[in-house]
Amino acid sequence: MRTLCVGRLALAVWFVALNAAAQPQPQPRARDLGVPFDGIPGPLNAITDVRGVEVGHSTIISGEGRLEVGVGPVRTGVTAVLPRGRQSIDPVFAGWFSLNGNGEMTGTTWVEESGFLDGPVMITNTHSVGVVRDAVIKWRIQQGPPDASGYWWSLPVVAETWDGYLNDTNGFHVKEQHVFEALSSARSGPVAEGSVGGGTGMVCHGFKGGIGTASRALGEKPGAYTVGVLVQANHGLQSQLRVAGVPVGTELIAANPSHRDTGSIIIIVATDAPLLPHQLKRLARRASLGLARNGATSGNTSGDIFIAFSTANPGVFGASRNVALTMTPNDRMNPLFDATVQAAEEAIINALVAGRTMTGVDNHTVIGLPHDKLREILKKYNRLVGR
Amino acid sequence: MRTLCVGRLALAVWFVALNAAAQPQPQPRARDLGVPFDGIPGPLNAITDVRGVEVGHSTIISGEGRLEVGVGPVRTGVTAVLPRGRQSIDPVFAGWFSLNGNGEMTGTTWVEESGFLDGPVMITNTHSVGVVRDAVIKWRIQQGPPDASGYWWSLPVVAETWDGYLNDTNGFHVKEQHVFEALSSARSGPVAEGSVGGGTGMVCHGFKGGIGTASRALGEKPGAYTVGVLVQANHGLQSQLRVAGVPVGTELIAANPSHRDTGSIIIIVATDAPLLPHQLKRLARRASLGLARNGATSGNTSGDIFIAFSTANPGVFGASRNVALTMTPNDRMNPLFDATVQAAEEAIINALVAGRTMTGVDNHTVIGLPHDKLREILKKYNRLVGR
Amino acid sequence: MRTLCVGRLALAVWFVALNAAAQPQPQPRARDLGVPFDGIPGPLNAITDVRGVEVGHSTIISGEGRLEVGVGPVRTGVTAVLPRGRQSIDPVFAGWFSLNGNGEMTGTTWVEESGFLDGPVMITNTHSVGVVRDAVIKWRIQQGPPDASGYWWSLPVVAETWDGYLNDTNGFHVKEQHVFEALSSARSGPVAEGSVGGGTGMVCHGFKGGIGTASRALGEKPGAYTVGVLVQANHGLQSQLRVAGVPVGTELIAANPSHRDTGSIIIIVATDAPLLPHQLKRLARRASLGLARNGATSGNTSGDIFIAFSTANPGVFGASRNVALTMTPNDRMNPLFDATVQAAEEAIINALVAGRTMTGVDNHTVIGLPHDKLREILKKYNRLVGR
Amino acid sequence: MRTLCVGRLALAVWFVALNAAAQPQPQPRARDLGVPFDGIPGPLNAITDVRGVEVGHSTIISGEGRLEVGVGPVRTGVTAVLPRGRQSIDPVFAGWFSLNGNGEMTGTTWVEESGFLDGPVMITNTHSVGVVRDAVIKWRIQQGPPDASGYWWSLPVVAETWDGYLNDTNGFHVKEQHVFEALSSARSGPVAEGSVGGGTGMVCHGFKGGIGTASRALGEKPGAYTVGVLVQANHGLQSQLRVAGVPVGTELIAANPSHRDTGSIIIIVATDAPLLPHQLKRLARRASLGLARNGATSGNTSGDIFIAFSTANPGVFGASRNVALTMTPNDRMNPLFDATVQAAEEAIINALVAGRTMTGVDNHTVIGLPHDKLREILKKYNRLVGR
Repeated sequence: MRTLCVGRLALAVWFVALNAAAQPQPQPRARDLGVPFDGIPGPLNAITDVRGVEVGHSTIISGEGRLEVGVGPVRTGVTAVLPRGRQSIDPVFAGWFSLNGNGEMTGTTWVEESGFLDGPVMITNTHSVGVVRDAVIKWRIQQGPPDASGYWWSLPVVAETWDGYLNDTNGFHVKEQHVFEALSSARSGPVAEGSVGGGTGMVCHGFKGGIGTASRALGEKPGAYTVGVLVQANHGLQSQLRVAGVPVGTELIAANPSHRDTGSIIIIVATDAPLLPHQLKRLARRASLGLARNGATSGNTSGDIFIAFSTANPGVFGASRNVALTMTPNDRMNPLFDATVQAAEEAIINALVAGRTMTGVDNHTVIGLPHDKLREILKKYNRLVGR
Repeated sequence: MRTLCVGRLALAVWFVALNAAAQPQPQPRARDLGVPFDGIPGPLNAITDVRGVEVGHSTIISGEGRLEVGVGPVRTGVTAVLPRGRQSIDPVFAGWFSLNGNGEMTGTTWVEESGFLDGPVMITNTHSVGVVRDAVIKWRIQQGPPDASGYWWSLPVVAETWDGYLNDTNGFHVKEQHVFEALSSARSGPVAEGSVGGGTGMVCHGFKGGIGTASRALGEKPGAYTVGVLVQANHGLQSQLRVAGVPVGTELIAANPSHRDTGSIIIIVATDAPLLPHQLKRLARRASLGLARNGATSGNTSGDIFIAFSTANPGVFGASRNVALTMTPNDRMNPLFDATVQAAEEAIINALVAGRTMTGVDNHTVIGLPHDKLREILKKYNRLVGR
Repeated sequence: MRTLCVGRLALAVWFVALNAAAQPQPQPRARDLGVPFDGIPGPLNAITDVRGVEVGHSTIISGEGRLEVGVGPVRTGVTAVLPRGRQSIDPVFAGWFSLNGNGEMTGTTWVEESGFLDGPVMITNTHSVGVVRDAVIKWRIQQGPPDASGYWWSLPVVAETWDGYLNDTNGFHVKEQHVFEALSSARSGPVAEGSVGGGTGMVCHGFKGGIGTASRALGEKPGAYTVGVLVQANHGLQSQLRVAGVPVGTELIAANPSHRDTGSIIIIVATDAPLLPHQLKRLARRASLGLARNGATSGNTSGDIFIAFSTANPGVFGASRNVALTMTPNDRMNPLFDATVQAAEEAIINALVAGRTMTGVDNHTVIGLPHDKLREILKKYNRLVGR
Repeated sequence: MRTLCVGRLALAVWFVALNAAAQPQPQPRARDLGVPFDGIPGPLNAITDVRGVEVGHSTIISGEGRLEVGVGPVRTGVTAVLPRGRQSIDPVFAGWFSLNGNGEMTGTTWVEESGFLDGPVMITNTHSVGVVRDAVIKWRIQQGPPDASGYWWSLPVVAETWDGYLNDTNGFHVKEQHVFEALSSARSGPVAEGSVGGGTGMVCHGFKGGIGTASRALGEKPGAYTVGVLVQANHGLQSQLRVAGVPVGTELIAANPSHRDTGSIIIIVATDAPLLPHQLKRLARRASLGLARNGATSGNTSGDIFIAFSTANPGVFGASRNVALTMTPNDRMNPLFDATVQAAEEAIINALVAGRTMTGVDNHTVIGLPHDKLREILKKYNRLVGR
């Protein structure tokens, strides 16, 4: 019990809140390093390019050295993605897909049944899904009485990847207040990447992973829509890593000892294209293909779970009468499929490029993907863009 | 080869075409016998109460006595359900569900992916699904050039149940012309039930089964919609049969030796309520509950496959731009769920009540559910309505 | 904040722990009242007839009168079903099904992917799923170090139904200790039914619902297996209620004002028959048919989610090499299907029969199904067994 | 009618039967050209490296010039994959997955339900699925009486891709005898690739596609298992094509006008590893990742449907009692996942490399992927292996 109190004290001291808006991004992203990608990104190359979407992080970092369960070291957090921002509780059409279900995304049974995502998508570590879930309900209640009839309940969507290599994950360091903070700090604008929020303690293809994002802006012909992707990347073996088709993982073997593939990836796909729930499932499934372009094979221990939502068609959920909708014909979805694959591919590489070397429990150290070496290797394979 | 020719000759002689419109229905239906059901049926108490829906049957009956494969006896056929009738090739939103998948319904992968049913739903015997499928494509081509670009293909929906107890099912007696006939004879209006079309050789709960139909008309408050159901009933043990909750099967054991549960049931649910594809899956799933009310437990050898479609929202499939839709809110679906369960329950009993004793291959005889005894039993359990 | 402290004090005073073994069952069950059911139950007519299965409840009841969120009245709890009992952490093969997914069952993505249920199945109220989930992980950690490698995580299965009509459900009264208690108190033997554990505040078909259980013992020919079912019943309209096929709900309309169908049902199916994961999905799906026999149509607001597991084939999950299994052929599953349908049907009626009138928040009162009237109605329809 | 007769005559003259064993393979495959792939192939680098698997093709080529429906030109056929060869009708465990379901694979509802694939997997053109399906039943009947009880039916697995750009696909040129031929000619040993069997008229990433195959041989540690893949590749835009991560499609734009993505791909995964049905679904899903490595994004008009089966655990299906099985633990599946991804990636490139320029209906011409240019491009990106 004492150690828990010390743990809390440490938290109070070390607590770091990185919300999206407050965080400048001087760090280079994958494109800045000359990695080639297909398609044209939106202005921020982030999920927040989809109008209305807001992202917030609560990052919890404290302690060093040997693991003492309940004390630390702590390298974890919570990320919140709000489809219509903090000002709206209007649900969005959604669909989901599990490429390899060694993971959790609560709330999906109702997403599947209703076709709606009602509330934010939260991402945290595996053993904190519960506290985050119930806290989302509490937060919602605090926003005001849910509905006049009193007949109200909530089935929040909370996903996770496992950070136990760097974080005292069995110490349950994510608390209600971190959830509230991630939600309250949610903003449009640039999104902090790398070791922030739920991504804090994550490892991807053997290097430091975490949060990554990217977007694609479609031209006028397919409807001037935007597709945005946010990933919490904690998956993949180093040996599998391909960047822009180049076998970067094997080229870097000397630089980094390989890890087991014990990780997972959560991918959130947002769009303003008016898609119905069954069409959003199609988008969610396409996230797999972006993942695959980077070489992953979705190992047994990977929780590779994807959700896609559309911010179009507001005001549909609570209607008391028939409602009018707009729908993109199936025949016009290909540009959206391409955009999803491309943005998922880039978001993962962005998560890697944003990763900085981190030391966590028992002095486990995970190095950030070395930018210079990445550029060298791309050059070797004639794939470096610019300079 | 000779026997096949004789077979064809026999077919030509015996060939019986029973289309929906031409068929008078002097026979009593379940309600006429005093079976109580929940809910209010439409004017015809048939799937054709859903405006636009047309049904056609091609019934093939020939020969008697010992089975000679390729010759007969033949007790089979084809039933066609056209969501918008013969005059329209405009696809409808649809969803499907397999309660127990020991059966075939082709085309469902595209229904699931696209959310559309493009073309009719056909029902025949298990070993004739292929010929019916390709013939639907040929029929569609014969209606006119499919599309100007030449890039066109079709993935017809064809379902089946097994009629080998009464029919020379390995003689492949269903031919292209029967498919054309079922399609061409499709009509609105009353629907022939019992041993017609695809239902010709079917057995249900140990008695003669086949085609059955029913509908529910919703009141103004839930939107004045109609739900119609058509079944090809070939499932269930006699001992399980409940009618209006009454254990009719066990009461009739003395009257009829029990059969193995080797059958299946196809259930088609039609509605004019504007439902999206994922909502139609919900409707399809409800068909299970109607089945269950009659006592079935969906045995291992049963192909219990259901499809639901909505005739609302015409002109959506082929749109070259975003299209406007109408959607029933999830919160207003309960009356549609109730209607589906009730109509499925009644359609199955209607199939049984329409069944007349039939003798088929090797003189196998299946008796029709005895109407008098059914009334007696209902009376014994205080469930007989009227008289 | 003060009210929360008072709330805790109240909890400490009022806290009632009803575990399975300690609870005598003088109350009649459905069979005792003369309700007829198909099939032969096991010795306890409970899920614990499946050897190894243990059930524990933690029941939380405190306060009366007007709702003060965070204070009470409290009418809730937690139920734990441990497939191999407290002494074993060996996972079991499992499969799940959602008839209507307006509910939560965490962990199902991994059940679907892996084919295993690893840990207990927990049931609680909708807004306490999170705390129960994380507490299951903590409890597991407390049992001993998870695995030598340190690479370990857990994806607990926690389901829920909504008790806000009787319970201060937004007061979050379920705490870690209740989860530990439900788990620690789990026993084989008779299972307490009605307003206990997760079922404390539940309403079913307009009457007091909650936990119910039943079982079926198969004869020697199908393999002498047992199927056990436990439900947390909170679903259904009164007007729909059928008992043994008799329209009890409509007959009782005068006695009880009808409620909206805002509820849900969780059904757990256990068996010792050696079934593979895909076969257990078939069993889970059959629970729908038991539900339907009692008249439910699975309304839009219902979270009707079912899970089935097999206690056969121990030691399979953690194997480091290929493992030997036993499998029941599909052709021999029909008796298991029948047993599942029958036991689910009976378990729901048992939950109703065990329900006693309860008053909760804002003096909402839900009456228990009146036993005498039930018998009268069964008699009226010639369905009363015995006396 | 006359044209049909002429069509048949033409068929008789032009008819070309290419069975797997008879076909020498002097043509280079992808590896022969220096394309780098991960993993170690089996001796034949073909699906037939999985012991027992046999492959047969029936190739139908006739006519030239303008399309006359029913006459030609004809560029189509049928491919048969027999999991245990022609000598065994013993079903295999199987699972399937639809990445984008604009296509047909009959029989999957029963595969999903039962966990078994009973019979061969057939592949043909879209509009010939029906004739192939029923012919498989007839072929099976001709092998001998199905079962003594007479209670027998079959639900064949038949898949397709669309060949209407080169083939008179609405002429229905696939006949029963082609099905019998594909089945009868099935052999172990090398597998003919490119424009053979069902793959005859196919187009892939803008070049001539068709049948391709590859395999991976796992080392002793993961169990010395083999994974074999066979594809009928008719999918993808040219601009998307990546070979070994190199943007070959865009590099070749000058050499070839791009086609619309109107195609599809069927992928069959075979293994001798003892996997249960739910594990085979995991394998089937991995085929998506191989597809993605080559750049495809699975367009709306693509029928990307995959099936995986295991030849282990013979004699399970028809058992009358409980049967003993072997199962690979989930924790040991990663090498099988890798192998599936790698073999699918290579099989597609093999289909492209085997493609030879073909002219079909209306003198549509599709060029074969130019081998020299492919090598040049690989060299430009430092990815050419050898020489």
